[in-house]
Amino acid sequence: MTDSTIGAEEQSGGRRGRGARRAARAGGGPSPQMPYIRRAIRVYEVLDEEGLALIERNADIVLEEIGIEFRDDAEALAMWKAAGADVRESRVHFPKGLCRTLLKTAPPVFTQHARNPERSVQIGGNATVFAPVYGPPFVLDLDGQRRYATIEDFRNFAKLAYMAPAIHHNGGTLCEPVDVPVNKRHLDMVHAHMTLSDKPFMGSVTAPERAADTVEMCRILFGETFVDNNCVVINLINANSPMVFDETMLGAAKVYARANQATIVTPFILSGAMSPVTVAGTLTQVLAEVLAGAAFTQLCRPGAPVVFGTFASSISMQSGAPTFGTPEPSLVSYGAAQLARRLGLPFRTGGSLCASKVPDAQAAYESANTLNSTLLAGTNFVLHAAGWLEGGLASSYDKFIMDIDQLGMAQKMADGVDLSENGQAMDAIREVGPGSHYLGCAHTQANFQSAFYRSNIADNNSYEQWQVEGEKRAEQRANEIARQWLGMYEAPALDEGIREALDAFVAQKKSGMPDAFT
Amino acid sequence: MTDSTIGAEEQSGGRRGRGARRAARAGGGPSPQMPYIRRAIRVYEVLDEEGLALIERNADIVLEEIGIEFRDDAEALAMWKAAGADVRESRVHFPKGLCRTLLKTAPPVFTQHARNPERSVQIGGNATVFAPVYGPPFVLDLDGQRRYATIEDFRNFAKLAYMAPAIHHNGGTLCEPVDVPVNKRHLDMVHAHMTLSDKPFMGSVTAPERAADTVEMCRILFGETFVDNNCVVINLINANSPMVFDETMLGAAKVYARANQATIVTPFILSGAMSPVTVAGTLTQVLAEVLAGAAFTQLCRPGAPVVFGTFASSISMQSGAPTFGTPEPSLVSYGAAQLARRLGLPFRTGGSLCASKVPDAQAAYESANTLNSTLLAGTNFVLHAAGWLEGGLASSYDKFIMDIDQLGMAQKMADGVDLSENGQAMDAIREVGPGSHYLGCAHTQANFQSAFYRSNIADNNSYEQWQVEGEKRAEQRANEIARQWLGMYEAPALDEGIREALDAFVAQKKSGMPDAFT
Repeated sequence: MTDSTIGAEEQSGGRRGRGARRAARAGGGPSPQMPYIRRAIRVYEVLDEEGLALIERNADIVLEEIGIEFRDDAEALAMWKAAGADVRESRVHFPKGLCRTLLKTAPPVFTQHARNPERSVQIGGNATVFAPVYGPPFVLDLDGQRRYATIEDFRNFAKLAYMAPAIHHNGGTLCEPVDVPVNKRHLDMVHAHMTLSDKPFMGSVTAPERAADTVEMCRILFGETFVDNNCVVINLINANSPMVFDETMLGAAKVYARANQATIVTPFILSGAMSPVTVAGTLTQVLAEVLAGAAFTQLCRPGAPVVFGTFASSISMQSGAPTFGTPEPSLVSYGAAQLARRLGLPFRTGGSLCASKVPDAQAAYESANTLNSTLLAGTNFVLHAAGWLEGGLASSYDKFIMDIDQLGMAQKMADGVDLSENGQAMDAIREVGPGSHYLGCAHTQANFQSAFYRSNIADNNSYEQWQVEGEKRAEQRANEIARQWLGMYEAPALDEGIREALDAFVAQKKSGMPDAFT
Repeated sequence: MTDSTIGAEEQSGGRRGRGARRAARAGGGPSPQMPYIRRAIRVYEVLDEEGLALIERNADIVLEEIGIEFRDDAEALAMWKAAGADVRESRVHFPKGLCRTLLKTAPPVFTQHARNPERSVQIGGNATVFAPVYGPPFVLDLDGQRRYATIEDFRNFAKLAYMAPAIHHNGGTLCEPVDVPVNKRHLDMVHAHMTLSDKPFMGSVTAPERAADTVEMCRILFGETFVDNNCVVINLINANSPMVFDETMLGAAKVYARANQATIVTPFILSGAMSPVTVAGTLTQVLAEVLAGAAFTQLCRPGAPVVFGTFASSISMQSGAPTFGTPEPSLVSYGAAQLARRLGLPFRTGGSLCASKVPDAQAAYESANTLNSTLLAGTNFVLHAAGWLEGGLASSYDKFIMDIDQLGMAQKMADGVDLSENGQAMDAIREVGPGSHYLGCAHTQANFQSAFYRSNIADNNSYEQWQVEGEKRAEQRANEIARQWLGMYEAPALDEGIREALDAFVAQKKSGMPDAFT
């Protein structure tokens, strides 16, 4: 899975690849799938050794003196007590070094397997994996209406994620299917990811039994032994910042870690509300929370994959509303990535975040600012990489399509500068010489196909041509592409026996409990 | 001028400052002026020592074996011959090391003085200076109409540049005032910068006599001796890539360098047309062209300030149209900045570039991608930082206002992470503790005003609030701000005698020649 010699062309093999190539020839379909990113460029760092050591010392003080709450979970507290922590009611105080010692069993790099081995991803090291938006209860639909999301929307986003070339991972709660009972949604969502896509995906974390259902479905899809020995699902375990883990998240974390599946321990922070208003203070709290939560997964099962997660934005000091794409969260991302690397854990942050209600310039400025820092920070797993709108309250079809174009650019950027003889292009400079042009020279012709990133959203034509074509804005072009792709979607092949077993599991589970809507 | 202890508050003194503060109190006016950026964050680099040395070797080969054309300028060729170059007709071949030796007299850092000393800027070192868009013949006006630009538009943009907090430099050809005769435009443009703003500005380069007029006007504004001893105007000298300097640019360069004024020697490149389709090939050609052009300024006057300029984007390989905000130009910017630092010259690139015809998501994605790499590359002088639309064919009022908001964010980003005791915020973490919030804690209250960057464009309110307020898009909010600022504009004070002398100079020059429109 981590074989960096697998090229984009090979990755598009199989039934899906043929469909995509057919569509691409017909014009307008998605370009070939891209394998997960292996960054050839270096990371950007905002903190020096001194600053990093300072924040680490401060986080140790937080862990020891203030402590972290593990609420309403007697088992978790008992586990911490047995591990040597000082437990006072639900507050756990950590002797200096305890969490770091526990984390020595956590892998710095691991593979999350997809049912199509060509779509398996490396998480950690020089890999970057893009996954779609997670969690919005609303959609901005294809007709421009904002409304509650449905399971049909969910399936549409699962299809688009599957088709999107620079989306390497199908994600999790692409939107909340509020037309499905709360206690049954996870079954439909996991089923959709498993059947509509062959990329890796995320599991349910909203209750321990839903996490257990996810693991059961993974065993149907991948086989029981394979699941026990390999990571096949990754799961978002949010801290309830500041400095609290609650029973829901702890319950899901226990299920997944004990099943040897990956967790992303993520302080969910809007600075000024859930953390101090400063970058260094936020980094200190983030590090303390991740140390405690990630170490807990190693108490559940040493060696279970765990990711250093950070979701940090700010609030407007006037209104308290969340803000995105501003400088402070970028600085937090850069700094947290450095702390994660020093800790030896894979890192998750960022995405294409914005506060705008529509896919306008605000949405794009904010998303691009976030994505640029996400990439250069050296982020390994990027949730919310496409489709995020309105502070995460809405999944937008149009923005999904615009964002994945930006992800393709980030992927090209990550290749860095080609310094081969062809990259140096001295033959071209010699052939063309002063006062001529490179349009037809041999080197340009030889590199015609791959020379530059090709956007399917950007209109680079003349003003007059753009007028003739209807004076469309970027999101109108994106809307057309979303409709077109959904129209040409073909499901990836799936073994009939597995498909039937998954259907049966979902049907049996659903019939075994009454609908619950809260 | 380079005193980094001058804070934003002090910079807002004087008549302008009082007006701005009054407006800010009334709500909606510009926030206080920000001094030019002193980057506290490190630069991002895409090339290692080996890559840089390779490109430098290749550029030396270009200079020696292929050579650079200095066209239709016998004096320039004679100067090169006298300096030891091998001149064959208009082609100059440079012995290895000649250009670098000549450039030893060029200052790595210099100050461009403004008539208001508080607005003088450092160019080079850790400074970054933002200047508006340069050159568009069209405007996208306040009513959303695209039309030819007029001198009234020019004056409006000069006023907005003067009022914009994170615009440190008023720029040059903010738009082409096509209602003024070609041979007289420069007089009105330089006059506007000198009288409507007190920030530094750029001079005319479209003919040697227009450059001479600019220098004359500078002598009126600053005094003759001051101009001879100090840089008071900076000027854009584009190479006619590939590998040509023409008589217009050489004529202007000679005037400015001999007057001890600054030039920005800039290969204007759309890769695939004016340079090879690869990043390394483009960097090689850029370096060779800058070495030749910048060294020429030192032949004109050793010690004259000169900037390593790069304008590099790509073309669509389908249509030949220029593209912006894609990965390749970002890589060129990062690499060229490294080459400039090794050469010991200040560096110019980037801005807020885009190909979109309207200030939509495409415009914003592309602009943000460009600006992010511009900042992290460590660019010293950033032309086109605000207002650029449609591949530089149109200056947009709305985008100008949106871009300067992004510039404010870049400026905040450049401050890096505050690691002071207040920045560490351990008292806040101790005070709040697990499960509470930071909204009212002492540390938050103490840092309320300066905690986070405050955008005047972003709408962070709830969807419902946004609906109530008219469902405005970002560019609509920007349009309102542009109108408001132009309505509250107050000119900075200017000595009456100087004002009259400038008026008289322009009047006399205009009356001395017939109008020319080509």
